[in-house]
Amino acid sequence: MAKLQHVIEAQQFTLPLIHELFQTADQMEKILERGGTLDYQNKIMASLFYAPSTRTRFSFESAMYRLGGKVISTEQAHLFSSVIGGETLEDTIRVVSNFCDVIVLRHTEVGAAKRASLVSSVPVINAGDGKGGQHPTQALLDLYTIYKELGYIDGLKIAFVGDLEQGRTVRSLAYLLGKFERVMLYFIAPDFLQIREDIQNYLTRHNVWFTLENDLSKVISEVDVIYITRIEKERFADKADIYDETVKKYFIDKDVISKMKQKSIIMHPLPRLNEIATDVDLDPRAAYFKQARNGLLIRMALLTMVL
Amino acid sequence: MAKLQHVIEAQQFTLPLIHELFQTADQMEKILERGGTLDYQNKIMASLFYAPSTRTRFSFESAMYRLGGKVISTEQAHLFSSVIGGETLEDTIRVVSNFCDVIVLRHTEVGAAKRASLVSSVPVINAGDGKGGQHPTQALLDLYTIYKELGYIDGLKIAFVGDLEQGRTVRSLAYLLGKFERVMLYFIAPDFLQIREDIQNYLTRHNVWFTLENDLSKVISEVDVIYITRIEKERFADKADIYDETVKKYFIDKDVISKMKQKSIIMHPLPRLNEIATDVDLDPRAAYFKQARNGLLIRMALLTMVL
Amino acid sequence: MAKLQHVIEAQQFTLPLIHELFQTADQMEKILERGGTLDYQNKIMASLFYAPSTRTRFSFESAMYRLGGKVISTEQAHLFSSVIGGETLEDTIRVVSNFCDVIVLRHTEVGAAKRASLVSSVPVINAGDGKGGQHPTQALLDLYTIYKELGYIDGLKIAFVGDLEQGRTVRSLAYLLGKFERVMLYFIAPDFLQIREDIQNYLTRHNVWFTLENDLSKVISEVDVIYITRIEKERFADKADIYDETVKKYFIDKDVISKMKQKSIIMHPLPRLNEIATDVDLDPRAAYFKQARNGLLIRMALLTMVL
Repeated sequence: MAKLQHVIEAQQFTLPLIHELFQTADQMEKILERGGTLDYQNKIMASLFYAPSTRTRFSFESAMYRLGGKVISTEQAHLFSSVIGGETLEDTIRVVSNFCDVIVLRHTEVGAAKRASLVSSVPVINAGDGKGGQHPTQALLDLYTIYKELGYIDGLKIAFVGDLEQGRTVRSLAYLLGKFERVMLYFIAPDFLQIREDIQNYLTRHNVWFTLENDLSKVISEVDVIYITRIEKERFADKADIYDETVKKYFIDKDVISKMKQKSIIMHPLPRLNEIATDVDLDPRAAYFKQARNGLLIRMALLTMVL
Repeated sequence: MAKLQHVIEAQQFTLPLIHELFQTADQMEKILERGGTLDYQNKIMASLFYAPSTRTRFSFESAMYRLGGKVISTEQAHLFSSVIGGETLEDTIRVVSNFCDVIVLRHTEVGAAKRASLVSSVPVINAGDGKGGQHPTQALLDLYTIYKELGYIDGLKIAFVGDLEQGRTVRSLAYLLGKFERVMLYFIAPDFLQIREDIQNYLTRHNVWFTLENDLSKVISEVDVIYITRIEKERFADKADIYDETVKKYFIDKDVISKMKQKSIIMHPLPRLNEIATDVDLDPRAAYFKQARNGLLIRMALLTMVL
Repeated sequence: MAKLQHVIEAQQFTLPLIHELFQTADQMEKILERGGTLDYQNKIMASLFYAPSTRTRFSFESAMYRLGGKVISTEQAHLFSSVIGGETLEDTIRVVSNFCDVIVLRHTEVGAAKRASLVSSVPVINAGDGKGGQHPTQALLDLYTIYKELGYIDGLKIAFVGDLEQGRTVRSLAYLLGKFERVMLYFIAPDFLQIREDIQNYLTRHNVWFTLENDLSKVISEVDVIYITRIEKERFADKADIYDETVKKYFIDKDVISKMKQKSIIMHPLPRLNEIATDVDLDPRAAYFKQARNGLLIRMALLTMVL
C-alpha cells in the first residue's frame, strides 16, 4: 500500500494515489457489509475540531469505529488555550499527538493543517481549514461518488452550479478533476458568484476545457453531473432584490431533472437549503445522500492508508 | 425475540411486549454482573441530542458500551444546520443513518422522533421530544422499577404527587399503567397543577380507577407507590406567595414515609430539588437511585431488541 | 498490587505507594509499546467535567482507551442540574456511578472530589477541584517526569519559577517532594507571587530545606530541575507597569539554559504563554512535552490501580 503520511490538500493526490484510494474504499465497502473489522482496535483517533462540524466529525468517527478503533473528541479545541489566552497550534499538536495515533483537524485558519503536520508525531488529516482553505476529504468523496455512480471520470461533462466564488468544495473538486483526461467543466453562476481566476488559470495551465455560463437550462441535457451548492442570502448584501430570482433560477425540481440524461447524477455537499426540491430525493439520479455514505468509505480508506 | 423497529412512544408497548422487555432487562442484569458482553462490538449508536440531557445520554451510552458497542455523540445536534440556518431534521437523519446502526434522538419538538423514524434507514429511539411530547424509555424504566421492587403491577395503588400538569414522565407512565388490571391511580396536586383532561379521558375510556386529590396525607398509608415530581418555582408566576407552602405540603421526609406501608416505594425521575429530604435516601423504600440503574437495564434491553 | 480506592489529593500518596505507582507506570510504557491492552475492555470510565479541560480529559480518555476500556464523557457536567437549577453533586454522583466503573471528576469547588468519593459506589479520581484545590495526577506526573529523566529524586535541587502564589501544580508538587530525602527547593518569584506560608510551614515541619529568591540567575547553574509556570497579566492588576519586565526577567531562552547543568531538566505544566522560547524545545533538557507523555502513563497506572 502506498504510504500516505498526512492528508493536507487535494493537490497532493496524484492519479495513481487516487486510484489506490478508490480501490481501498471499494474494499472498505465489503468490510462494512461484513460488519466492520477489529484490525485497528489498538489505534486512537483524535477529533480536534476548533469549530463544530458535527457532520464531518460523525463521518470520521464512524469510519474509525468501523475499523475497530477508538476516538477522543472535542469540538471546542480552542479551549486548549482560551482560559489563559493563546497556546499555539503547534504546542497543542505536540501534546495531543502523545494521546493518539492520528489527528483529524478542523481549524478556522487557512494553512493550519500544514502547520500541524510539521510538528506532529502522528499523521494529520485535514478536515477543513478556513474559508479559503482546503477540505480534501470532501473533494475526494465527491470524486469517488462520480466514479462510483458513473463508472469513470475521464471525458465527463460536469456542471457546477450556485455560489462558486466561495464554495470550498467546488474549488477543491475542480483541482482534482483537472488531473483527469478530457473532462469538460461548466461553471454556472451569476457573474458575481463565478469561480475565481486562480482556478480558471489552473485549468488553463492543465489544458482542461471549461466555460463560464449563467444559464443552467442551456447545458442541462448535455452534462453527466450537476454539482449544486448553497446560495446564501448573506452573499447578496447589496443585491437583496435579486436573491429570490437567483435562487429560483438555479432551483432543481422534477421538471429540471426530467431534462437530464438518464445516466447522470445530481450532487450537493449538504446541508441543502432550498436548492433542490425534496421530490427529487427519490429520483435515481439524486446522489447527494450517497455522498454521505461514500464519505464514510473514503475516510475509512484514508485512515487505513495513514495508520 | 419480538421485532421492535423503532421506540417512539409509550403507547406502542403492548402488554406482551412490555413483559418481553422486562424479561430481557432481567437478562441484561445477569450480563452486567458478568461484566457486560461484546456481542454488539460491530454496532454503532449515534446520540443525536438537539438539547443537552447528560443524564439520559450517559444512560444510553453506558448501555451501548455494556453491550460491547461504539458511540458517536453530540449534544449540539442543532449545529448540523445552524451555521447556514436550517437543514431539516429529515435531511440530518438521512445523513446520520449512514454512520450508525441506531439513532438515539433527543429533540425539542413534539413528534420529532416519529418524523425521524419515517426517513431513517436504522432504528430510532426517542429519548424525549418536546415538553408535551414523549419520553418512552423513562416511562418504561419507571414501570420496570415498580415491577422489580414490588414484584407485580396489577392491582397496585399508585400516587402521583407534584406538578402533574406538565410532568412528561407522569403522563407517559399513566398511559402504560392503564394497560394493567385493577390499578388505582391517585393524582395529588394543587388544582392548577393537576393532571390534564386528556389523560383523565384516556383512563376513563380504559376503565382505570383514578381520583384527583390535594392532600397526600389522606392516602399515604394506603398506596404502594408514591411517584413524586419537581415543583418548579417558575410555574407559580402569578401565585409566588403560595410556592413555599405548596412545596412544604408535598415534601417527603422521614415523618411522611413512616406512615407508608412497609412494602411500598418512593420514586422520583430526578433531578430532585427539594421534594425529598436526603435522610430518606437510606430508607429501603427509597427507589429513586434504583431507577437510574434500572434505566440502564431497560436501555440495554431496548437496544438489543431493535438491533 | 496495593489497593487504591480513590485518588483525591497528593498527600494520600506515601513513599511506598509512589514507588509502586512509578513501577506500574513503567510497565504501562511497555504495554503502550506493544500497542496497548484489552484487559479492561469491560470497564467504563466517566469523564465528569464541570468545566472544560480538554488537555486533562484527553489524557485520561487516551489512558482508558489504551487499557482497552470505554469512556462516557461530558465537559458540561453542570448541565446535570442547570435546567432546573441545582442538583447536588452527591445526587449526580449517585446516578453516574450506576453507569461506569470509575469517575474522573473535574470540578470548580475545592473539596468536590472528596465529597464525591463519600457517596460514590465506584472509585473517584480527582482531575482538579478548584483554584486552591488539588490536581494530584498532575503532581504525580510531574514527580514521575523528574524521576524518569534524572533517575532519582532524593537529594535533587529543584527551582520553582513564576507565579508560585496561585500555582496549583507547584503547591501539590511541593507536598510530594517533601516526602523525599535531602531535596532542596528554590522558590523564585517576585515577592507578591511567592509561595504561600502554608507550604513553607509544611516544609519546615518536614525538615525540607528551601529558600525564597527573586533572581533565577543566582541558582541557574546549580539546580537539577527548573519548574516554570505561567505568569498571567491579570495578576498584575495594580502593577501593570512591571508586568513586561517581570516576564522578561524569568524568560527561559537558549542563553539561560546554556548556564544549566548538562544533566538537568526544564519543566512546565503547559499551556505555556511566553515563559519559554520555542528554540529551547529541541534542547535535550526540555522535558515539558515529555510531561504530557508521562501523564498518559501515570493515568494508565492510576486507572489500573483503582479498577
